[in-house]
Amino acid sequence: MGFLDLVRKRRSTRSFLPNPVEREKIERCLEAARLAPSACNGQPWRFIVVESQPLKDNLAEKAFSGPHKMNSFAIKAPVIVAVVTLPTKTAASLAGFFRRLSYPLIDIGIACEHFVLQATEEGLGTCWIGWFNERAVKNSLTLKGLERVHILLAVGYCEREPLASGKRKNLEEMSEYR
Amino acid sequence: MGFLDLVRKRRSTRSFLPNPVEREKIERCLEAARLAPSACNGQPWRFIVVESQPLKDNLAEKAFSGPHKMNSFAIKAPVIVAVVTLPTKTAASLAGFFRRLSYPLIDIGIACEHFVLQATEEGLGTCWIGWFNERAVKNSLTLKGLERVHILLAVGYCEREPLASGKRKNLEEMSEYR
Repeated sequence: MGFLDLVRKRRSTRSFLPNPVEREKIERCLEAARLAPSACNGQPWRFIVVESQPLKDNLAEKAFSGPHKMNSFAIKAPVIVAVVTLPTKTAASLAGFFRRLSYPLIDIGIACEHFVLQATEEGLGTCWIGWFNERAVKNSLTLKGLERVHILLAVGYCEREPLASGKRKNLEEMSEYR
Repeated sequence: MGFLDLVRKRRSTRSFLPNPVEREKIERCLEAARLAPSACNGQPWRFIVVESQPLKDNLAEKAFSGPHKMNSFAIKAPVIVAVVTLPTKTAASLAGFFRRLSYPLIDIGIACEHFVLQATEEGLGTCWIGWFNERAVKNSLTLKGLERVHILLAVGYCEREPLASGKRKNLEEMSEYR
């Protein structure tokens, strides 16, 4: 499958089968994420694959309650990956200060998308989730104060064909040549 | 080529041939970026493909002078893509405020990596650049005040085999199962 076909195949899955996900598939997704480029090669990430009970259900129920209920579909995902953003190395952090931007967020975007695209190739469904109760997730996983969990990835087999992707801008609208 | 092979093939290219890059290749890279997922499907990006003279050289020389000289290798790239980060849509911007995080940076990470991986498949070399004189780039492209250029991508044919990627953490160091 060419890369563009893989990109077209990736959809946000919001309806999961209860079937467990094979460890070797997750392992290859992690390997794809591991090899992602990052600012100053800082690799500011740790992927916590939450799959065992009762931890997974507890985490999901707390993460997606109250104002975050709109993402409660993810409670049914057999695997939830909590992506921990680590504090940056000095060079990237100093450069980020001068540039008024957080490189680790860009890095997290790259590494998680590597995970997601490999999962797509493995026949798995995924959903990026950025709206959840981070404090509850950190408590469930007993993470340290400065560590952030910016992103959760819901992973599993799709119960049914995911909805088509949201409408994208045309090429002419999102790009130009000069 | 499987996705993991593509990921392994991608390297940061810092030495470019002067050969121009075919428009249809760039077009497929933009298509891959266009289809990237983003928070609330906000697509907060515009890709300005700078390839014509004297604009490309002027932009590159100004972007990579003074404290940014360490990236002056990119002056030789036949194509420089300035990735404009657009202000977010209200939903993503409100959620980002509550979550203390900038979703557009994550989105830019995803979309640019789609571009870069498609370029790799096309046999092109690329380099992510996050350290450059943004004000000079904005002036060269006459961009508006609120628009940010967080990332430049240098694109072209490799003059020689790029260096091996920086050493990555082991799987055990960057991931765990719970």
